[in-house]
Amino acid sequence: MTGTAYGVGLGPGDPELMTLKADRLIRNAQVIAYPAPDTGASFARNIAKERIRSDAVEIPIVVPMVPEPFDASSIYDNAAAEMARHLEDNRDVVVLCQGDPFFYGTFMYLFERLSNRCRVEIVPGVTSMTACAATAALPLSRRGESISILPGTMGETELELRLAHCEAAVIIKVGRHLAKIRAVLDRLGLTQHAVFVSHASLPNQVVAPLAGFEGSAPYFSTILVRSPDRNAPK
Amino acid sequence: MTGTAYGVGLGPGDPELMTLKADRLIRNAQVIAYPAPDTGASFARNIAKERIRSDAVEIPIVVPMVPEPFDASSIYDNAAAEMARHLEDNRDVVVLCQGDPFFYGTFMYLFERLSNRCRVEIVPGVTSMTACAATAALPLSRRGESISILPGTMGETELELRLAHCEAAVIIKVGRHLAKIRAVLDRLGLTQHAVFVSHASLPNQVVAPLAGFEGSAPYFSTILVRSPDRNAPK
Repeated sequence: MTGTAYGVGLGPGDPELMTLKADRLIRNAQVIAYPAPDTGASFARNIAKERIRSDAVEIPIVVPMVPEPFDASSIYDNAAAEMARHLEDNRDVVVLCQGDPFFYGTFMYLFERLSNRCRVEIVPGVTSMTACAATAALPLSRRGESISILPGTMGETELELRLAHCEAAVIIKVGRHLAKIRAVLDRLGLTQHAVFVSHASLPNQVVAPLAGFEGSAPYFSTILVRSPDRNAPK
Repeated sequence: MTGTAYGVGLGPGDPELMTLKADRLIRNAQVIAYPAPDTGASFARNIAKERIRSDAVEIPIVVPMVPEPFDASSIYDNAAAEMARHLEDNRDVVVLCQGDPFFYGTFMYLFERLSNRCRVEIVPGVTSMTACAATAALPLSRRGESISILPGTMGETELELRLAHCEAAVIIKVGRHLAKIRAVLDRLGLTQHAVFVSHASLPNQVVAPLAGFEGSAPYFSTILVRSPDRNAPK
């Protein structure tokens, strides 16, 4: 195959937080692929929509919005096959990725299927992690300290173990795991140092101290934990 | 104070990996501050230099390049005071930050000194972490897995403990700690799954399997560790 597949990070949601390189690649793209829910609009496409050429071929990759894990192999097999037809004809394909393609993105499933067959270039993007820190005005870490990125889907015991051994933590994909996460943070005395963030950089963003947050958490929401009592280990 | 201080992430080094927002703010900035070494050019300024107005007031924040820790309080006190004079006169100040301002950046020292006195806005940027993953073509993590970001400055025992309890790790600031890190990874059987990266996204970038890497490591270099044997805990 002679075309190049680009995995292009779009950043957290505000179109102005995409990189100049993403902007250029999208404006020039003849073929564009993106994840899309089974109903409603694609979040990734929404971020990029002002830049997509009207004559671009679009390949929506429809992934059902059901709880993990589910077997999506055939979905990515089919998407890779459709992309391959363009790549074989020497047309580049730009894959739109919210955030960063290799930071908890689904692009890695396409990468696995294409990287042995064609040139694949990854264009990194602003992650939700640092967008949340910016929105919350909370520096994540000082020079000698670690940061643990922990999915909220992790089991309660394991989550507690990990949170007990880090200076700062970013708990992603909070969603329906909010009560469990809150219980763990309560036991560790960390709730007062935790901030809830959703939709960072978008008009509907929410930032609230976790202690006082009473809403429900969307799937893509984040809890930042930064205890001032914990310092870098020697 | 009526001006706004912007902490602007510039990304890992390739100017095209700055965000559209960073590009706009820098092009419009009348006052620009940036970290600079005691000799040689500022890396942050270099990334942005094509965009800096010729009539912009520049505030280099000269930080000596000596091993951590050292007391830089007076340096940041003086820089904040110089910035405050512009902010009081209703001039915004753009602070250039390589990577992301709140991801191991020195901007947090200015944030501490200014955030109670004026409006501070953080503009997130692409981190070296995801730029390294893109350069190495190594997806950092799958959906249910954690990532630990560990400074190479961490003590050997602590580093080993942390690396033994994560699915993927990003060891930053490798520099003179390379031999120690290699010893720990060897003991854990992880060296074969480790990739060394420096200067990601720049013309002089280096990507090499750690096992075969024989060079010395600059301060801003990174080791990515991703063991295929480790899966998300239940």
